[in-house]
Amino acid sequence: MYYPEPIAKLIDAFTRLPGVGPKTAARLAFHVLNMQEDHVIDFAKALVSVKRNLHYCSVCCNITDTDPCRICQDKTRDSSIICVVQDSKDLVAMERTKEYDGYYHVLQGAISPMEGVGPEDIRLKELLTRLSDERVKELILATNPNIEGEATAMYISRLVKPFDITVTRIAHGLPVGGDLEYADEVTLSKALEGRRQLN
Amino acid sequence: MYYPEPIAKLIDAFTRLPGVGPKTAARLAFHVLNMQEDHVIDFAKALVSVKRNLHYCSVCCNITDTDPCRICQDKTRDSSIICVVQDSKDLVAMERTKEYDGYYHVLQGAISPMEGVGPEDIRLKELLTRLSDERVKELILATNPNIEGEATAMYISRLVKPFDITVTRIAHGLPVGGDLEYADEVTLSKALEGRRQLN
Repeated sequence: MYYPEPIAKLIDAFTRLPGVGPKTAARLAFHVLNMQEDHVIDFAKALVSVKRNLHYCSVCCNITDTDPCRICQDKTRDSSIICVVQDSKDLVAMERTKEYDGYYHVLQGAISPMEGVGPEDIRLKELLTRLSDERVKELILATNPNIEGEATAMYISRLVKPFDITVTRIAHGLPVGGDLEYADEVTLSKALEGRRQLN
Repeated sequence: MYYPEPIAKLIDAFTRLPGVGPKTAARLAFHVLNMQEDHVIDFAKALVSVKRNLHYCSVCCNITDTDPCRICQDKTRDSSIICVVQDSKDLVAMERTKEYDGYYHVLQGAISPMEGVGPEDIRLKELLTRLSDERVKELILATNPNIEGEATAMYISRLVKPFDITVTRIAHGLPVGGDLEYADEVTLSKALEGRRQLN
């Protein structure tokens, strides 16, 4: 390498991030070199703080800096519904709709035999514990609409059978703003299957 | 925001980097969350170290952690040639060719009236000081082949006239592996203009 050691090290560190190749890493490192020193120090502190101050909520298994997390602490939410998502980013996507005011359960993954992730590797035990709470009436399965997500949803729906709880799955169909012409067959047949009466 | 504060701060910090939008920033921040703690600490240290341990070489104005920089310290190089580049990344690109063994001068910019960068804002004074060294016989102008780079090259070539030094400009033409069909007119006319006799 022809870069001085400090910058070579930073390029290395950036290269470890997903989707960052050596050229992008060099560009980012040189950008840091020209940033204000206090911004760089804030960046460094934020990195370490994410690692040190975050843990999983003891109730919903979302990542949080308080325990229980802010959503689990919120008593104004509807305690009869729990929405099951794969990870924290999915929870944030759900919150962004502003259409849901129940609680969440974050699985921190999905069942994937291909990657060696079994039911015991995701937060299912914690979910079952919560279901013994009598207030829970509905479980919305909002795992991803792919093989792993579907398998996980199927597994959970069977697991919950003994409980007197309605289990629902979010709808599959055409995305809003999408085009019928470019929809894949599977999505289109799911959209057809899930058709609703309008009159 | 629905993210806990430590991660929201890190997302913010990533968003400040060039080419990183909020979605990429969130993906990177969650990746950091799952990284090994010592890798994260190394990353944070590298950030701060780049800012604190790097400065400009007193000879060639390249960024360096030693003074003079490793290239200027290297006595095996050809002291009769200085290659002038705009920034450290250009120097690294030149070094990668393994075809050049002279010294460098890093301008840390190019003359650009549009952006308010004049000749006094780049490292020209330092370059002139070096030219009084009698060993220097050739100055290769390897600034970028765009308006700012050309203007800078023209400016330097005039500045150097009083000295008994050959000034050369790197060639313009078709990139190797390129396609005549897709070449723009300016590149193609430069390639034509710079044609060489083969027999």
